[in-house]
Amino acid sequence: MNFEQIETPALILDKNILCHNINKMQRHLNNFQIKFRVHGKTAKCMEIIKLINTQGITVSNLHEAEYYFSHGIKDILYAVGIAPGKFDHVFDLIRRGADLSVIVDNTAAAEMLSEKSNQKNIPILVYIEIDCDQRRGGIDPEDPEFISLGLMINQNKNLKLQGVLTHAGKSYQAKSIQEIKLIAKQERDCAVNAAKILRNQGLNCPQISIGSTPTVLFNQNFQGISEVRAGVYIFNDLTMLNLGVCTPDEMALSVLGSVIGHQVNRNQIITDTGWMSLSSDRGIVHPEIPLNFGLVTDIDGNIYSDLIVSSVNQEHGIISSKNSVKIDFNNFPMGKLIRIFPNHACATAARFRRYYLWEDKKEITGFWEKI
Amino acid sequence: MNFEQIETPALILDKNILCHNINKMQRHLNNFQIKFRVHGKTAKCMEIIKLINTQGITVSNLHEAEYYFSHGIKDILYAVGIAPGKFDHVFDLIRRGADLSVIVDNTAAAEMLSEKSNQKNIPILVYIEIDCDQRRGGIDPEDPEFISLGLMINQNKNLKLQGVLTHAGKSYQAKSIQEIKLIAKQERDCAVNAAKILRNQGLNCPQISIGSTPTVLFNQNFQGISEVRAGVYIFNDLTMLNLGVCTPDEMALSVLGSVIGHQVNRNQIITDTGWMSLSSDRGIVHPEIPLNFGLVTDIDGNIYSDLIVSSVNQEHGIISSKNSVKIDFNNFPMGKLIRIFPNHACATAARFRRYYLWEDKKEITGFWEKI
Repeated sequence: MNFEQIETPALILDKNILCHNINKMQRHLNNFQIKFRVHGKTAKCMEIIKLINTQGITVSNLHEAEYYFSHGIKDILYAVGIAPGKFDHVFDLIRRGADLSVIVDNTAAAEMLSEKSNQKNIPILVYIEIDCDQRRGGIDPEDPEFISLGLMINQNKNLKLQGVLTHAGKSYQAKSIQEIKLIAKQERDCAVNAAKILRNQGLNCPQISIGSTPTVLFNQNFQGISEVRAGVYIFNDLTMLNLGVCTPDEMALSVLGSVIGHQVNRNQIITDTGWMSLSSDRGIVHPEIPLNFGLVTDIDGNIYSDLIVSSVNQEHGIISSKNSVKIDFNNFPMGKLIRIFPNHACATAARFRRYYLWEDKKEITGFWEKI
Repeated sequence: MNFEQIETPALILDKNILCHNINKMQRHLNNFQIKFRVHGKTAKCMEIIKLINTQGITVSNLHEAEYYFSHGIKDILYAVGIAPGKFDHVFDLIRRGADLSVIVDNTAAAEMLSEKSNQKNIPILVYIEIDCDQRRGGIDPEDPEFISLGLMINQNKNLKLQGVLTHAGKSYQAKSIQEIKLIAKQERDCAVNAAKILRNQGLNCPQISIGSTPTVLFNQNFQGISEVRAGVYIFNDLTMLNLGVCTPDEMALSVLGSVIGHQVNRNQIITDTGWMSLSSDRGIVHPEIPLNFGLVTDIDGNIYSDLIVSSVNQEHGIISSKNSVKIDFNNFPMGKLIRIFPNHACATAARFRRYYLWEDKKEITGFWEKI
């Protein structure tokens, strides 16, 4: 099968690059005594997870938890703050055999979880989410509530304190590899310090889980850390490229699209790759990076360095010249296939139900279904 | 069933408002002798289309065409420029009984379509897409290629020239109702003029199809127009609200979410409504409209006028104060349900597989599956 036989837009996964990215992470982690728990929200696909030497899985919602559990993965970390409306579903997964752990960052949520676990008489594994960079959720380990939360979890017979967890979301806004390394150090230090605070209270804190693709790949000191998590490294994307985390030939995921129109007077090409396929994610917004919705290449992956996806509608993508250079429309006849590498691989992959597998840059060898 | 029994995030469709919006459009159109062809890309749901007095359907991709055709709708307009890679699928739909019409805006695409229709010996209905506002696709009716395109379609035995079609995408950037009315006039005039140019060449041009939610709702002169199209009016959203096209109580679609965290020091609430549910669509970016990803209300729809969804991650939504007013976190306990009205109802609806139906602002009476 070749690209011409696929109805566009379609998700193309370069299997060689995927395996390269997986191996690169594995080689890096082999330098350290550390467990790895891949984030399943990026792939949403068991075939990909099978390629990874992972300690269980991380998920971002219970739909993913159900999916991976149905494919035999028991050790599941649900790494988004839990709401009471999801307790029944969580305990049902545990009752059915999942070793599901959840995260909390406040005593109110922990108390409600405790009440439910007592009511059901089902023990549940709990991590305390630590805020290491003020980017999203988590509790500051210096906050007095942190210790009371640890003590409260420890005192409840059904809440099993697993440890602490953090995610250095700030790493996605770093301006240099040097800054990523600093953020990685901060992530590691913050989590280790949080565990120390708990241990100083006599609490058991066996697990310290940290991670983001940039900080895991550039950290050289995981001392004291038991587990790292990362997701987008399997594919990479323009965000990772612009951060310096990957090279252009380490981007595994692209959207195959077709030229459906020429707007010669406006120097624009119209494609069938709108936000239904690329997503509306704008990636990193830096003054030096032109705002766009994807990197345009030919089907072989040769970059059209002057072209950008300047806007996206539901099904239309509009491709313009970055530097107002006149586009040679003869190079883009009607129906010409192009590939677009997205700003955010997680957001783009989430728009599709299957990956078409491209191998050795030669042919499509099959597809993998995803959720 | 009530909101508490639904796992968040979930799509809530206020059925009364939906019906109000559908009736409002119908009442408006009753003033004119005109056909209406709803755009099925917004609802992606047959149950909703059944409520509408529509002349066939408009679709934005062949997946929608398949879906609506499988539910008995034969008269389908595929209103995105056609690429050769989709010809086989298009002709297969026609062979199976669909009265599918396609659009072209250039002779190259029309020639390829003609070749395929001759090869299959299957006639196909063709509209010429007109560019009325330089927003996306279509051909300028003053462009000499327009006439040659019309003549070329007319000369081919299997291409059946249906007429001209345009979409005033510019209306989504209008600054006032007065401007929408001007754009509506321009849309109508442009399409009528295009048809006149074809007819002056002795060509048959039975259909003149125009539309966008803003221009259809505010146009009072459809003279010469045979058909109008609109989609998002069924739900409305913040884009329509900011344009002045709807009032707050005419927004039918919202995302039910849960509070999953407090960041008191940063004056932020964390919810489970990230871009997986709301989408990353930023809506209208005007200096006077604060950048955000949704309007926050309680479950009854009372607006928290100071709160905005200031950022979205995959599963996390971050709610902040618009004016840096201190949030009273006691009003947003862990697990509290809120509703968020999205920037773009089409983009948000596309993230879900079902609508939960809310009736009389009392209870959830069921759900409708969607694609």
